[in-house]
Amino acid sequence: MLATTARSVALAPRTAAVRVSRRAVAVRASSEPINPSIKKDVDKVVDTVSIKDLDKPKVAYCRCWRSDTFPLCNGAHVKHNAATGDNVGPLLVAKE
Amino acid sequence: MLATTARSVALAPRTAAVRVSRRAVAVRASSEPINPSIKKDVDKVVDTVSIKDLDKPKVAYCRCWRSDTFPLCNGAHVKHNAATGDNVGPLLVAKE
Repeated sequence: MLATTARSVALAPRTAAVRVSRRAVAVRASSEPINPSIKKDVDKVVDTVSIKDLDKPKVAYCRCWRSDTFPLCNGAHVKHNAATGDNVGPLLVAKE
Repeated sequence: MLATTARSVALAPRTAAVRVSRRAVAVRASSEPINPSIKKDVDKVVDTVSIKDLDKPKVAYCRCWRSDTFPLCNGAHVKHNAATGDNVGPLLVAKE
């Protein structure tokens, strides 16, 4: 049974964490663009990481297209998920 | 100078490739969820890949959240980009 839409607005001063049902999120997400600002002059943004170049045992790569350090993750997905009810997160690339 | 909105509708029978200006795409993308259907029962989808998981020299990982083989890329970004005017593509993880 799908969760009904719950519209409780938190009183946090800056980001209003609006809880929306996952179904509403799915419907809105399906036909919209994803990338607001990264390399918009390029037809398709493809990045390559070679495991030997990793400077740590495990490195997080962005999948929410809002990181200031793209293609690396900087945690921007937390704010995006809170603002839209989404559930995206990074790809962790590990040496071992 | 930003490209003006060009509304030429291709005559392709199935997907109508609507060309919209990159600025219109950026504005629509910024506040919408990204992931329509992947693991919506999970609060944050984080995947890990390590070198021993790579069965080829270079493997493509999805960043458009529409691949049937998620977290792996299956080319679903092509249809998404054509339908929304977006420019997303995969992360290629290479052994060397």
